Amino acid sequence: MKKSLGANIIVPTTPVWVVGTYGQEGKPNVMTAAWGGVCCSKPPCIYVSLRKATYTYGNIMERKAFTVNIPSETYTKEADYFGITSGKAIDKFAATGLTPVKSELVNAPYIKEFHLILECKVIKIVEIGLHTEFIGEILDVKADSSVLNEKNLPDIEKVKPILWNPAGMSYHKVGKSLGQAFSIGKEI
Amino acid sequence: MKKSLGANIIVPTTPVWVVGTYGQEGKPNVMTAAWGGVCCSKPPCIYVSLRKATYTYGNIMERKAFTVNIPSETYTKEADYFGITSGKAIDKFAATGLTPVKSELVNAPYIKEFHLILECKVIKIVEIGLHTEFIGEILDVKADSSVLNEKNLPDIEKVKPILWNPAGMSYHKVGKSLGQAFSIGKEI
Repeated sequence: MKKSLGANIIVPTTPVWVVGTYGQEGKPNVMTAAWGGVCCSKPPCIYVSLRKATYTYGNIMERKAFTVNIPSETYTKEADYFGITSGKAIDKFAATGLTPVKSELVNAPYIKEFHLILECKVIKIVEIGLHTEFIGEILDVKADSSVLNEKNLPDIEKVKPILWNPAGMSYHKVGKSLGQAFSIGKEI
Repeated sequence: MKKSLGANIIVPTTPVWVVGTYGQEGKPNVMTAAWGGVCCSKPPCIYVSLRKATYTYGNIMERKAFTVNIPSETYTKEADYFGITSGKAIDKFAATGLTPVKSELVNAPYIKEFHLILECKVIKIVEIGLHTEFIGEILDVKADSSVLNEKNLPDIEKVKPILWNPAGMSYHKVGKSLGQAFSIGKEI
């Protein structure tokens, strides 16, 4: 017999993505979004869902572009900071000593020090409720050589991304492998 | 200097969610989706993105409802199996010995043996490309007492959900906590 917990966002797990945008007068900004994910393989698309009240919401509406910067575990503190402060009042790059770099593909900045970056052009905006979903086509993925494996793909044990657990309000590491997909299910 | 990896879905990380639906003549089915996430807090909404070719796509189009069943680590093999087989040809419940239960809130079945379940009513359908995004409002979250903590919330160390790493085509555990949100960033 299952217990009813009500209509609530207590879902394991979501990513911790740092969204890069330009504000007015080209001020670079970053905010952390936990409502994000992959929504299409072809064209390759991801989304981030944002509240209208955020600085980033207005920035994306204006420029129809954003980057997603994947924080590694060592940047957990910065990722949290980017989520609890607003670019309306603060220069988050100055506060953290991180470096904005202008993307050559989209009208948005990325964080130089972060190892894995997605450059996205907004192709759809979906009004849902408190949050608006921005669907972005990935124009390029950029990575530092230090996080790539022999196939030139990001190695999750080197990227060390962060997870968000909404029910516990906690950040988590990615744990060890449970097996390869399209493979272990063949035993059934 | 970052390396360009091209326009590709090599994003850490996505959840591993098992989507429950009814097919024609009420046949219960489940499929695994890795393109899923939270897209709104109010109303609480999640989405799954599916290819039109899947059995589940037609089922959701017909009944405008689905459940999300969170597999624990012990069900990694079943989760993979649900992703590599089609309900058009196979009775996946019979093949795995799992038990479908009719949701009382939405026109979809859930898996009795899985500890955490979301019951969703489709409120928006977004055509993107190869994948169609089904946005579902969470009408209820149901859980077994065995995975709840003292606050009556799902404890991630008991739920033991699975992650998907698209770049490595691998399943992963959720690792240990890196800290509490809205807290550790205050040190900056």
